[in-house]
Parts: sequence; structure tokens; C-alpha cells
Amino acid sequence: MSGFFSSRWVEAPEYVTEAEATELARGFRAAGVAAGLVGGGRPDVGVLVSDEPDTVSAARFTTNARVGAPVVVSRDARTDALRAVAANAGHSNVGDGRRGLDTALAMQALTAEALGVEPDQVAVASTGVIGTELPRDPVLAGLREACAGLGSDAAAFSEAILTSDRSPKRACLDVALSGGTVRLSAQAKGAGMISPRYATTFCFVQTDARLEPETVELLTGVCVKRSFDRISVDGQLSTSDTVVVQAGGASGVAVEPESRDELAFGEALDALLRQLALAVVADGEGCERIGRVVVRGRPDTVEPVARSVANSPLVKTALNGADPNFGRILQAAGQAWPSGEAFVVDLEIEGRQVVSAGDAVELDPAEQEGMARSFAADEVEFEITVPGEGGETEVFFSDLSEGYVRFNSAYTS
Amino acid sequence: MSGFFSSRWVEAPEYVTEAEATELARGFRAAGVAAGLVGGGRPDVGVLVSDEPDTVSAARFTTNARVGAPVVVSRDARTDALRAVAANAGHSNVGDGRRGLDTALAMQALTAEALGVEPDQVAVASTGVIGTELPRDPVLAGLREACAGLGSDAAAFSEAILTSDRSPKRACLDVALSGGTVRLSAQAKGAGMISPRYATTFCFVQTDARLEPETVELLTGVCVKRSFDRISVDGQLSTSDTVVVQAGGASGVAVEPESRDELAFGEALDALLRQLALAVVADGEGCERIGRVVVRGRPDTVEPVARSVANSPLVKTALNGADPNFGRILQAAGQAWPSGEAFVVDLEIEGRQVVSAGDAVELDPAEQEGMARSFAADEVEFEITVPGEGGETEVFFSDLSEGYVRFNSAYTS
Repeated sequence: MSGFFSSRWVEAPEYVTEAEATELARGFRAAGVAAGLVGGGRPDVGVLVSDEPDTVSAARFTTNARVGAPVVVSRDARTDALRAVAANAGHSNVGDGRRGLDTALAMQALTAEALGVEPDQVAVASTGVIGTELPRDPVLAGLREACAGLGSDAAAFSEAILTSDRSPKRACLDVALSGGTVRLSAQAKGAGMISPRYATTFCFVQTDARLEPETVELLTGVCVKRSFDRISVDGQLSTSDTVVVQAGGASGVAVEPESRDELAFGEALDALLRQLALAVVADGEGCERIGRVVVRGRPDTVEPVARSVANSPLVKTALNGADPNFGRILQAAGQAWPSGEAFVVDLEIEGRQVVSAGDAVELDPAEQEGMARSFAADEVEFEITVPGEGGETEVFFSDLSEGYVRFNSAYTS
Repeated sequence: MSGFFSSRWVEAPEYVTEAEATELARGFRAAGVAAGLVGGGRPDVGVLVSDEPDTVSAARFTTNARVGAPVVVSRDARTDALRAVAANAGHSNVGDGRRGLDTALAMQALTAEALGVEPDQVAVASTGVIGTELPRDPVLAGLREACAGLGSDAAAFSEAILTSDRSPKRACLDVALSGGTVRLSAQAKGAGMISPRYATTFCFVQTDARLEPETVELLTGVCVKRSFDRISVDGQLSTSDTVVVQAGGASGVAVEPESRDELAFGEALDALLRQLALAVVADGEGCERIGRVVVRGRPDTVEPVARSVANSPLVKTALNGADPNFGRILQAAGQAWPSGEAFVVDLEIEGRQVVSAGDAVELDPAEQEGMARSFAADEVEFEITVPGEGGETEVFFSDLSEGYVRFNSAYTS
């Protein structure tokens, strides 16, 4: 097993094997075309469709109060029976009023007609600059061309949804269940404005397993919570986050509710989404190194403490500089703790205790060198124990580099 | 009037005149010495004392649950009758357990004995690296030397409290009241880990006006809320924030509670602290440009919306790049709005409406150029109107530059 599952923080089940990353689950077709929205001849409009009439699905969207027109339109669609996705990069279609809403509806209608499905079976997803017009004619022309050129390869589709991503995020997995082998394929994008809550950046997942709609809904909810909800590049909740999981059933292999196969399929989906979420973090704008912070203690405090550490520019720059600066971790954790309440923490970095009951542990030179070495790795782990019991969470986060600032000072997004 | 009051966001009353910034209010003496804590022969230990036995005072401290030993010791002191401040840079004395607490107590005791005051009339303040030992012998030797060399000039004291600040932050003002002229002097530091809540970075204020303790407490509370509580460099609440305001009375001019002079004195203190707070923002690590975000609308939402905008790395990098990118402002504001509730905003940048009822206003080329020009100024103002009525707040914030990242990747703090 190599290639896709690259993080030590994701364990791929042994009954999962990687297929070519650009392949699709059976019964799905996709296309991506260059419609001139981002320039340079790069694919920027994509269509994905399930050919199975009884496809079931689940979707999750950003919880930002300010959402784009595509999210408004997609939330109103039949999210449990989506057949297709119409996506574009270049413009996110946010803040363009009635005109933007009409463009999102036109994208949905055109795609539905070209594919012979109902408009409310099409999700729309747009990513790119906020507050500019998404040019309607080019995007509709792109969708028409994409619908006419659908094929069994997801390469161009996975490229058409990228913005500042350094590379496509995609995978195709074969999952050996007791009733036969099913396939899971997925395409995602990330890069910036990444701090999902009960939602994510873009991630489209297809399977040819036959699932009950309730099963897709349940597994999507659980797996998104354990993956895209647990990452942060810059603490910024996007206006456009969208996840769509579709199950077409073309394999003929049914996954029954509460069966062992459901558990196995769920674990495969979980590994897929966690690795994709980590790929989004690792490809965060300017990211050079990623961290995982685990917090254990009083249940209502673990999440704000973990977020405070993961989003602290001081912690993130220390990670970037490979500086094992635990003072900044204590400061960020303390900032999220209820003021005036006793705050006594333990901190381990890469399994080495550096703070005990709130105070620095004296390390000998060899231990200091060991810590500095582990801090310079690609993945660094922090474990924080706060007062109280019963709560535990984790957040994966990117560092903060000069590259992030350079990029976001110059780029309009 | 020139020099100190440099921001258009601070209005100095016309009865306030600037004296030499390094002077002190009558009845106060100060000193700063190089004790070798930061190296390079720079002053790093300072003492400030009021010679008036009946000095009254007020203090504010960080609300971070993880505080340093100096804050623990100072909070326990007689904050309404402080005679002296013992301060140092280089090490913040946070996370060093019993040893750190003993060092803070030793600093307090030595200063009290050298000055002939009670230990609980001495506040201690340390700033610098978190989680390392504050070397006791050098800091005590420094305090002894400083107590022996007190004078009427605050220059060395104001330098001894700096860390990554580019320059000292200090002022001395003459305030013409009906009963005579009183003097206000102040020394502050900032630079990083700046997001005070009901507290501040370091700021020491002296006046020779004669005030009731209740008046000092009241005015300190109000003015800190309108100044240091309203700034953010990086959203990071320090472990060590400390404000001490002392009134010695040496001028013989009494400021009676609820008098016109109290109002006038309060306005002078307000202008002093606001300008110092703005100096802290403008001298934020790597800061090249500062913003002011004003939010009006539903009372419980204006503060989180303003903080979300002020602390957004995407807004801060756009400010750094002089990119009038209002999409990121909408996104950051929406992130702080209660999810699921209607969010319709207006946005003005430098008095120019760019978003109306949530949607972009079309600007002609001349208007776009005007906006780009005002966005490239040293100070940029954003006014956001969210749904609801009755609430209004403001936050001053620095941009996010490559310099901030470079500095904090390399610097251990």
C-alpha cells in the first residue's frame, strides 16, 4: 500500500486496495473542460454524473451564515437523491445577488437537461473569487461541453475544481466486502479558507455499492465529522464548502444497515476522507509542515482549546520554523480556557513530556535534541491534557509560512 | 500638536499639550538598567516609583487562564495603593513553577525594601520568552541597581520593558484643568501576542493629579476598555498583560468625583491610552498598515463579528497587499454570525459603500481606483452593518506580513 495513504495518522483497512487515482466507481462518468474562467487553458468547469436512476446520496454544506448562491441552490435540491454535480473554479458566485442566484439555477437547469435528470437532482458548486460575477455564458458553455464529453476518467474533473491547490486530491479504492468488492472514488479541493464545521471544502465521493439512503446519510455525517471537520489551514470558514457522497449500486453488492459490511465500508470511507482532509491541510496555502493536536479533559473545553492551538499564528509560525516552542502552546490553550478557572496542563510533543502540571519539564541536551529533531519532521504531534475528564478531540493544522502571506497578499480570493 | 497624537482615530482634547515624551509626572522617579537578560547591553530591568505615600492606583491583568508568576504576585498586591513597579524583559517568568513564583516574590521584596515601601505596594511585570527560567541573580542585581539610580527621566525605564517592539511607546502630557495643570506620563510595550481582553500588554501610567481611589479605578476601567481592549495584532491573548495607573497627587490639583475636571481628565487619559494602543498595533510584529473595523447591529453579535474580521489572516493579508478584497470581509463576518440566521450586511470601506444588503455594489473605474488608493494608506477603515440594532464596537488591527511570519518562525517567545 503506497501512494494515497501517506499519513501515519490514517490507517487504511487491509481489505482496501488502491486503484488508479483518476478512476471512478462503476456507473459514474465525469468530465472537465477549460471554459476560460481561470485562464491558461486549465480545466475550470466539471460535471460528474451517476448513470443509475436509483442513486442515493448525502450532502454537507458550510455553516457560514454568508453562503454562496450555489450552496443556496444545492441545499434546496434533493440531497438524498443527487444524480449529478455541476462545478466550476475561478469565481465562487458569492455576493452577486439575484444575478448570481440566476446563474446557479441556470447551471443546474442546463446540466439536468443535458443529462436527462431532474434539476433538483443536480448539485452546483463554485469556488474562486468572492464578490465578482461568475460569467454566465462561459460557464454554461463549459457545462454543455462537459456533459457532451463524459467518460470513465475523473482526471479532468478533479482538476476543474482546483483553485490555489498545488495538485489534485483524488483517490480510487477497491473495498473487499463479504458480498463482493465495491469501489470508492473521490475528488477534493482545498488550499485556503479552510476551517470547516459540519461541512468541508469541496469533496465529491462516488461508490458503486448499493446503500440505503439512511446509510449514506449516516456514514457521511460520521466520516465528515472525523475528517474535514477536524482540519484547519487558516481558521477561515468558507462560504462555499460542499461535500456530496453518491451511491449508485452498479456493483450489485448491497451493504445492509448494521451489517459487518456496513462497518467495513464505513471504515474505508473514513480512511478515504481522513486522508483527503490531511491532503487538504498539507496542501494549505504555503504549507510546509502539518501538526496534529490532541486535547483530553473536560468535554466542553477540548474543542475550543484544540482550535485555539491549531489557529494560533504563534503556534503555526513556530511549527513553520521547527521551533519546539511550548510556551506558545500553553498561551493559546490558556486563552480558550474559562477565565478564572484553575488551568493545569500536561503537554507532550511527539510522545515526550515537556510540560507537567503547567510547568516546564527540564530536558537534558539529548532530549532537547530529540525534540528538535521530531519538530522538524513533516508531521508533528501535540498531546494536551487539560483539567477534567471524558472529552477528547483532535485537530489537524497547517503551519503559517511566508508563502501563505505572500500568496494571500497578492491573490484576490 | 504633533508627534505623539499621530492617528486620525484619536482626538486629543485642546486643553492637552505634549511635553517631552520621556518626562514623568511630578512625584515619580524611574530607572532602567542593563542586567544582561536580553543581551547587547540593552536596558532590560526597570523600576518606577511614586514618592507620595498616599498614592492611589488601579490595575488590570490578562484574562488568559494561564498567567505568569508576576501576574499572580501582582494580582495579590494592593492594586489600589501601588507605589512601585518592578519590571523586566527577556523572560516572562511563565511556566516555571515554584521557582518562578519565588523569583517574582523576591523581585517584589527586594524592590520594596530598597524603596522603603511595603511588598504588597509593588507590582511585578515580566515579558519575554515563556517557559524558561528568569535568572534570579541578574534580575535582582538589576533591580538593586535601578533602585539606586532613580531619576526624573523615564527613557531607560521605557526601553527596559520592550521585547520585539521597534521603538519605545511613551508620552508625557500636560492637562489644563480648572484647578490647575496636571501631568500624565505613560510607558507601554507591545509587538506580539496582542489581543487583550479587559487587560492589556504592558502599560504604566502616572499622574500627579490627586484622585480618589474609586476615580482611578473607574477611569482605568473605562479607558482600558476603549483602548487596549480594542486592539489585536495576532488574536493571541498574552499570559502577562499588565496595566498599572498611579495617581500620586504631587501637583496639589484635586480632581473631584463627578466634576467637570474629572470628565476632562478622563478624556485626556482616554486619548493617551487610545494613542498608545494604536502605537502598539502599528508596531505589531511586521506591521505595515493598520485597520479599524466598526460593526453596528445586534448587540450580542458586533464584538464577535469585529474580532472575526480583525483576526482573519485572509483579511490581514489583503490589508497587507493593499487589496480591497471585500469578499474576505464578508466571509469572516459571516463566520461569526449565528449559523442559520439571516445575514444581510452593508460594508463601507473608507466611507465608500462596496456591499449593499449583502451584494457587491458595482463601482465605476474612478471609484475602484479611489478605493484602491485609500486601501493603500497607512490606516484603513471598514464599517460593517449587520442585522439588528443597538450595538456598536470597533477593533483596531495590524495587517499580516511576511515579516510577522519570518520573525515568529525564527524567534522563541
